[in-house]
Amino acid sequence: MELNRDTNILIVGLGLLGGSYARALTKKGYRVSAIEPRESAIAFAKENGFIEKGYPVPTKEVVGQAELIIFALYPHILFDWVEEYGCYIKCGTIVTDVTGVKGAVVNRVQAALPEGVEFISAHPMAGRERGGVEYSDDTIFHGANYIVVPTEKNTPAAIALCEKLGEELGFSKISQLSPKEHDAMIGFVSQLTHCIAVSLMTCNQTEHIEDYTGDSFRDLTRIARINDEMWSELFLLNREELISQIDTFSQELLTLRQYLERGDREAIRDMMRVSTKRRALFDKKN
Amino acid sequence: MELNRDTNILIVGLGLLGGSYARALTKKGYRVSAIEPRESAIAFAKENGFIEKGYPVPTKEVVGQAELIIFALYPHILFDWVEEYGCYIKCGTIVTDVTGVKGAVVNRVQAALPEGVEFISAHPMAGRERGGVEYSDDTIFHGANYIVVPTEKNTPAAIALCEKLGEELGFSKISQLSPKEHDAMIGFVSQLTHCIAVSLMTCNQTEHIEDYTGDSFRDLTRIARINDEMWSELFLLNREELISQIDTFSQELLTLRQYLERGDREAIRDMMRVSTKRRALFDKKN
Repeated sequence: MELNRDTNILIVGLGLLGGSYARALTKKGYRVSAIEPRESAIAFAKENGFIEKGYPVPTKEVVGQAELIIFALYPHILFDWVEEYGCYIKCGTIVTDVTGVKGAVVNRVQAALPEGVEFISAHPMAGRERGGVEYSDDTIFHGANYIVVPTEKNTPAAIALCEKLGEELGFSKISQLSPKEHDAMIGFVSQLTHCIAVSLMTCNQTEHIEDYTGDSFRDLTRIARINDEMWSELFLLNREELISQIDTFSQELLTLRQYLERGDREAIRDMMRVSTKRRALFDKKN
Repeated sequence: MELNRDTNILIVGLGLLGGSYARALTKKGYRVSAIEPRESAIAFAKENGFIEKGYPVPTKEVVGQAELIIFALYPHILFDWVEEYGCYIKCGTIVTDVTGVKGAVVNRVQAALPEGVEFISAHPMAGRERGGVEYSDDTIFHGANYIVVPTEKNTPAAIALCEKLGEELGFSKISQLSPKEHDAMIGFVSQLTHCIAVSLMTCNQTEHIEDYTGDSFRDLTRIARINDEMWSELFLLNREELISQIDTFSQELLTLRQYLERGDREAIRDMMRVSTKRRALFDKKN
């Protein structure tokens, strides 16, 4: 299967990401349908012209026509969906997703789908503070990273198609990681950072602090405004890795605390020099 | 003393903040001189027209003419300065500063200055990732907070003058805190956040992560690019408070870790709901 303007694309789940995928693909001239139980989401997407057709429930006919299926669902809904309706997907169809963890997802979904249906997992690293198709916006993909997460069951053709999808969506960087590498990386750069932001926001009473804060506190807590349903599920699906990342970070903060306690200014400065050097390199590459 | 266009204003230390003060005040029509040992900084400020006169060393004549003195120095340099040259300051002069900690600074500076010279401390909560007068920019004050930190030794007139200075500089919010309140607040919203950012940047190898990061990691580590000379000094001058803030935060992160370990999704969601509510309130007020 090749991705072209005639490909019958079906998005399952019209939330923030599903909606943003639909917007990006429609703008590029692709034909996009969607399955979404919330009627107002389908109405919104049709009114705004970014889906051709919308269906409230998965029927054999609708699912069976699709040549590329994109799941934009919470993990537990995705698991239920493939177990219940996976049999409707026709042989030769390529299936992908947007799920934020992979180890607990990829093998399970691959195992649930019928023979001849290939699941190639992907993680679009983009989002907003608020969910729902009403906030969908395909510009969130610009400048963002898209990670394709193949297993040994995937074919080069499906991997290539998934990468092309990332390009068509407008992502700036497309890369590949194994599920294990992906979850370690995400545990660090995304899940740990959300744990830190939430803890920082809840650890003290914060009334009136808005009169006294600079940009630092605002920056570090932006993501403390969080979709608790989605993130709690993703955290628990990557629990071991996330706990290990929390421990690594906590140990480093404890080391800094020890330098403070013994008044070791040179050790503090050394640590700051490392962080400054790394962050400057990071700015340069971005 | 009242602040007006004829007030002889002397800025001691032409770095990022001293330079930005000079720019803002000159734009408003004030007459600003500066003392700064780095000749190129004085040359830069004169070429760019934001000081009238610049002097490499504090002389009795130059210091004795000033009616309002603004110290924009690292704390240890400020301490040395007032002990060595404080005697040059004439009676009736108002003195203020920009120092980021107060408990260890205010009483010491007040005690070092001659009778009749009033020190009213202030903390302009603004900065940039890079220091030096070459990066000075008075627009950093717009939207930012300015905290006046009086003690029982200050007069209402000097407090009012200091607040007027904050307004003239272009700060959006001007408030008052005691030195103790200030240091607790700054320990939390500013120093703790910098400790977190630095630890996050140094706790793992970060090569190649730029291919996989979303905005979260970028936001949480922006301030990991840090002036190690300045911040290490400020941290150590507020050591007890900062250690206590690190402990409060670490305990909260540990609590979240425990919820993860026992798979307590509801407890995780409750914590996220609190952080979301607080952060939303924060956005609204800002």
